[in-house]
This record gives sequence, C-alpha cells and structure tokens, in this order.
Amino acid sequence: MTAERTIKLAIAGLGTVGAGTIALIAAQGRLLTDRAGAGVEVVAVSARDRGRDRGVDLSAFEWWDDPVAMAREAECDLVVELIGGSDGVAKAVCEAAMEAGRHVVTANKALIAHHGTALGRLAEEKGVALGYEAAVAGGIPIIKAIREGLAGNRFTRVHGILNGTCNYILTEMRETGRAFDDVLEEAQSLGYAEADPSFDVDGIDAAHKLAILASLAFGAAVDFGNVHVEGIRRIAPLDLEFARELGFKIKLLGIAERTEDGIYQRVHPTMVPVQAPIAAIEGVTNAVETFGDFVGATVLQGAGAGAGPTASAVMSDVLDVAAGRRAPVFGVPAERLTPAASLPMTGHVGPYYVRLRVIDRPGVIADVTAVLRDNAVSMESIIQRGRDPEEPVDVVMTTHETTEAAMQQVLVAIDGLDAVVEPPTLIRIERD
Amino acid sequence: MTAERTIKLAIAGLGTVGAGTIALIAAQGRLLTDRAGAGVEVVAVSARDRGRDRGVDLSAFEWWDDPVAMAREAECDLVVELIGGSDGVAKAVCEAAMEAGRHVVTANKALIAHHGTALGRLAEEKGVALGYEAAVAGGIPIIKAIREGLAGNRFTRVHGILNGTCNYILTEMRETGRAFDDVLEEAQSLGYAEADPSFDVDGIDAAHKLAILASLAFGAAVDFGNVHVEGIRRIAPLDLEFARELGFKIKLLGIAERTEDGIYQRVHPTMVPVQAPIAAIEGVTNAVETFGDFVGATVLQGAGAGAGPTASAVMSDVLDVAAGRRAPVFGVPAERLTPAASLPMTGHVGPYYVRLRVIDRPGVIADVTAVLRDNAVSMESIIQRGRDPEEPVDVVMTTHETTEAAMQQVLVAIDGLDAVVEPPTLIRIERD
Repeated sequence: MTAERTIKLAIAGLGTVGAGTIALIAAQGRLLTDRAGAGVEVVAVSARDRGRDRGVDLSAFEWWDDPVAMAREAECDLVVELIGGSDGVAKAVCEAAMEAGRHVVTANKALIAHHGTALGRLAEEKGVALGYEAAVAGGIPIIKAIREGLAGNRFTRVHGILNGTCNYILTEMRETGRAFDDVLEEAQSLGYAEADPSFDVDGIDAAHKLAILASLAFGAAVDFGNVHVEGIRRIAPLDLEFARELGFKIKLLGIAERTEDGIYQRVHPTMVPVQAPIAAIEGVTNAVETFGDFVGATVLQGAGAGAGPTASAVMSDVLDVAAGRRAPVFGVPAERLTPAASLPMTGHVGPYYVRLRVIDRPGVIADVTAVLRDNAVSMESIIQRGRDPEEPVDVVMTTHETTEAAMQQVLVAIDGLDAVVEPPTLIRIERD
Repeated sequence: MTAERTIKLAIAGLGTVGAGTIALIAAQGRLLTDRAGAGVEVVAVSARDRGRDRGVDLSAFEWWDDPVAMAREAECDLVVELIGGSDGVAKAVCEAAMEAGRHVVTANKALIAHHGTALGRLAEEKGVALGYEAAVAGGIPIIKAIREGLAGNRFTRVHGILNGTCNYILTEMRETGRAFDDVLEEAQSLGYAEADPSFDVDGIDAAHKLAILASLAFGAAVDFGNVHVEGIRRIAPLDLEFARELGFKIKLLGIAERTEDGIYQRVHPTMVPVQAPIAAIEGVTNAVETFGDFVGATVLQGAGAGAGPTASAVMSDVLDVAAGRRAPVFGVPAERLTPAASLPMTGHVGPYYVRLRVIDRPGVIADVTAVLRDNAVSMESIIQRGRDPEEPVDVVMTTHETTEAAMQQVLVAIDGLDAVVEPPTLIRIERD
C-alpha cells in the first residue's frame, strides 16, 4: 500500500477544535497516511475573522470568507464543519457539501440532534459519509464502538456522563460542600464553563448527545424533541450529603432505555450507587456505558471536550473516509430506522429521592406520608435533619419503585402542605 | 441498501465461543443485515466431536471433520477460527483459509501473539481480512478503538487488566483476606479458572494480549518473546494489606510503553493508586487504558471472557468484512511495521515495593538499608510489622524511582543476609 491518494479537507470554523485539527494533521504527518492508506491534507479553511492568531500556520490553505461557498466550491473531498449551532450556517455548510458530493465530518451535536435523520438521509442519497464521532463525548470513540465494535448486539440501554461541566461542578460540590453558584463561578474562571452556562448546566448539551446515542443504539430516528431534560441548578450541597449517607453519588446522567413499548430518553440528576462504574467518573471526564444483549455492560471513559480530544475524534472520522471505511450514518440504512418511538417521562418507573424543607411541628410527617399513601407510593426510608424548635428541618425520603406520574402528583400535593416551606427537590435513583 | 449479498461463514471449533457465535447470529437475524448491508450466514462447521450437544442447532450446516480441509474447500467467504493454541491445527486453519482467499476472524490470542506479524503479512498478500478483536479483552472493542477510533494519535502507553481470572483472585484475596491457593480453588469451582490455571495465573495469557496491543498501538512487529512476564502466585494477603495501607491496590497489569529507545512490554503484579481508573476494575472485568498524544487517557472496560462477549467481538470483525470495511491488520501496512524494538526489563525505571521476612534482632534494618545505599537505591518509606520476640517480622519498604537492574541486585543481596528468612517479594509501583 503506497499513498497515492490524498484526501483533501476544507475546514469550516477555526476555533479551538479547528486549530487542534490542523495541529494534529501537522504533528502526525506520515503516521496518518500509514494508518489510512491515503494522505490527509488541509486545502481550504474558512472562519469569521481572518486576522486572528490561532497558533497554527494557515498560510498554505486557501482562505474562504464564505464557508458555504467553500463547502460547495473548494477543491476538496471532505468538509469538516466546526462552526456549531443547530441551524444557520453550520447546517448550510453540511448540506452544501453533501449536495456537491463531498463527505462531511462534524463536531456539531446540536445540528445532529436536531437534523441528524434528514442529514443522514441526504448523505445516503449522495453516497457520502457523515461522521459525527466528535459530537458525542469528545475524544471517546463511542460512536464507532456502538456502530461497529458492538454491532453484534441489540442494546437495551445506554447511559452516560455526557457533560464535563456538570460533572465537574457536582464533583466539586461533593468534595468541598460548596454551593452550585459558587462552584459554577469557579468553573467559568477555569474555562470549564461558558459565560452563559445554561446549555451545560440545564442539561441541553447532554440531551443533544443522548438523542444521538439513542438513535444509533436503537436504530431509531433522532428524536431530540422528546428528551426529558432537567439540569443541576437545584442540587444543593445537602443533597450530596444525603446521597453519601444513602450510599449514592449524584451525577447528571443521560439515559436512553429501550422497552417493549418504545424508548425513554432522559437527562436529569441521578443518584447512582457509589460502587457503580459510572459513579467513579469524576471531574470533567465523560463516560458512556452501553448494555448489549450478548456483550453485557461496556464502559468507555475519557476526555469529553478540549481541542486535542475533539480533534482526535474528528480525525477518526476523516481516517475512515480516507481508508474507504463506511457504515450507515445511524448504524442502519435510513429506510430501516424506526420512526421515533419516544415515551413520555410520566411512564418512567423507578425509585425516587425527595427532599423537603418543613416546619418541625407535630403531624407534619404524618401529612407527608399520607400523601405518599394516597398516591400508592411506597416509602423505603426517611431521614430527618435539624433540631432547632420552630426552625425548618430537612426531611429526605426514598421510595420503592413507582411511576413518575404518581411522583409528580405526590410533589404537587406535598408542595401544597402548609408546613412545607419550599418546593420539594426530586432526584431519580438508578440502581443499575 | 438491500441485502443482496450474504457473507458465508465456516466456523472451526465449537466450544462455548463457537456455540455463542452461532447463537448470536440466530438471535439477531435481520439486525446484522441492516447494520452490515449484507447478510451473515453460517454454512459450515468443524469440531472434534460431532455428537456433543452444544445447545445450538447445527443441522443446517455442513459438517467437516477436518477443519483445515473446511478452511480450504468449504463454500465460504470467511473462516472463524475458534480452536485455540499458538500452533498446530489453529494456525493451519488460518493459513489454509487465507491461501484460499478467505477472510479470517479469530479469537486466538496465542496464535496472534506468536505468529501475528507473519499471518498479517499473508492476509495483506492475499487481500483478505484478519480480524482478532476477540483475542484481546473479550467483548471490549479495544482493537477497533486503537486501530480506528483513536487512530489520529501517537500512543505513548497502553496498559490494562487483561486477565479476568487474576483480577478475580486478587479482588477476592483483598476483600476476604484469603490466600492465593484457597481463592484459586474457588475460582476453579466457579469456572473462572481452568483446571490447569498456569496460563492465567502465571501471566502468559495477559502477555499474549499485551504483545498484540503493543504491536497495534506502536506500529511494531508483534514481539511476544520479549514480554517480561510474572504472575500472581507469590502475592500474599499481607501484600494486599500493606498495599491498602500505602494507598494502592495490587493488579496484574499488562503494560506497554514507548520510549525514545524502544518499547517496554511487561506483565506483573503492580501497585496502582486506589484513585486510578484501573484500580476501580474488580472481579472478572477487564479494562484497557490507552494514552494518546492528542486524546489523552481513554479507558475501555467490560467483560473479558465468556461466550456472549467473545461472540460479540467475533461478530464485530465479521460485520466489518460483511460491510467491506478494512484496516491494516496491525494498524499500518506490514512493510511499515517497525521491527520489534523491545527493551530488556533491566532498563525499567520506577518505584518499587519490597517485602521481607526477617528475624527481629538488632542491626537487621541497618543491614538491609545498607544494601539499598550500596546500590544507590533511595528508600521512600519503611513499615515493620509483628512484635513477638524471636519470631520473624515483616518489613516493607518502598523506594523512589530506580532501575530494575539495581533492584535485582538489591534483592539478591538482601536474600543473602542471614536474618532474611524467605526470598523477598518485589512488586512494581505505577503512579500514572
């Protein structure tokens, strides 16, 4: 095998990942050719600001002010889309590239979560690749693992820590006892959280990734709109303390489950047993655990973000194209993807943790437990904290398995009790 | 994409993995076709005993008494070799299949460790695939991850828990305080260890897998003969106790490191910090951690053995063939593999743990520490246990970084001291 062929790349978007990708190609040189059986060469780039110093030499590349024009017209085989955003320019770049018969590799989770099925169909029609390894869990090769490495399995469940910012914040809160706002501010100053942190801390980013994983694992159309999403803003240091006491850690998990009736997709703070593999993942690290019928549980963990890891994932897709390796965009051909069959969160069944702040007076616990009884929710344990008379106390209950619908009724009824002084906090428990 | 094509398999060897592979194909049916774009069908099988009940229906398959003849002559596209053994029939089956232009998928770690480079070259000459995902770490898709998912990286190190039997024994010893022989017997009765356990407990099995991982990660010819191998027979419950006291767990690790001078490959009991990802892997679970220059550390963990997980790995390779996906057997073309450049263990540099049993009399510690000083080995800590006068006591020392050569001299000198009543136990420490 000699490297007669060269795959020519046009890169749209020169932020940290774009610069990282250029740096990777420059650093690895001949190695990539050896591994792919074809050379990899950047020929064109596009970004908003031509003058900015990005720490990499762009002088050998054709510069395009208009990334869509570049995608359509530059002399290239493959367009790397690193602009971001679910619509607008990023989408136009990918569509223009595929329409022109070019392969597309993207790190854009929002785009794939919102438009993945349609873009996948377009790729198939045009006979080009659409790679998105970099869109989920950074450098962890989870897309390839599900799509190819574990392809002999029917998956029943995929879950993971898909947002490093949230995991960092929850880890810090647990280790230091500090409050959410305080740790968020620190994460922002360290560059682990954006100035506007809502995409991360409200669970949207994790939900994008989860919708992609669910589609791939279950062979279903991407259905971001039906992901149940809750973030971590309401988690208090007290919840982390109670979790510890109960043998749990609190993680923002993305969970996709296939049942006989359809698919549950949910992102929310979750109590997981301290001995679960996923509980050991701390700080900005990401991890995904898959459950296949023949292979059982498999965990992949690593860097979920950053220039180097994301460039590594981009390159995995680029090298597949260079080597002529192809797999259906979502694991099976578009015509074989089942329509989205997402189930509403109200049907979820599991154990729950509920924390209340109540005035400590006779009969309060009786009132609260009566609400559970009236909704046929069976309590597993109860802990009461704080003993200053007439001061509010914290009461934590865990339940046996029950439905989300019943728990939502319980929450409303409890919140209506006079003695309950702030809205209850609910955290789902996963024992798997 | 409709499934016009069908990949026809001949399976040589019908032990648990062979039966598991047949069961997987029967169970998944249409799913495999959807994922690979081609059907997967077993057409021929061969094993020693035709009459044995294997729990799967073989009636639709052509039976061959001679697996080599089957590999050469059966009407098939791909031969799955599940006989085992580094030479003899297994090797003949693989060679015959490739000579006849058939793809080969094998779970045979001994074969690939001993003859991988030559077999890889033959596959390349004949233009066929040689898949061995199932040979390393059971169901964990680590071969594909290194070869494709992380292919944008230069690897500096790969290490892992590659033998579930040893990890189970060490986990049980630590948790229960029981001795090696006792736990081994239990592992045998549970089916976690063979009647002849030496391949597992003496580290050979892990060494086979490590040699394969090292070749793939570093683009070097497979060099099993130069893996330094030590097993776990000499680990005592006392070592596990001391490890805990020092903040470590003891794992049988396979470690491959690339340095400027060459490659270290070693399998030995290793003290790893309790907070290291690899330390969390307990029982029969396997895990591999890779270190790439752009992606950083990535950990894959899962089932390292068993019918279902191994069949899952076999199927991953089969589906790659069915889908027409190809990668160089060891990540780069045979002509680009660097010759084996394994370094001798004596050049290894790291910290060490040494446990001695000594007669507790004046001057003993002075004698021991003088040995260290004379060999320029710097002690980091010392612990002495046991206080019955005239009874032997246990002394444990840890060292700062030093060379293996120096430590081996230290061991010989210490063993020669009158007060030392049994050969010292040495365990290497890895802080990464």
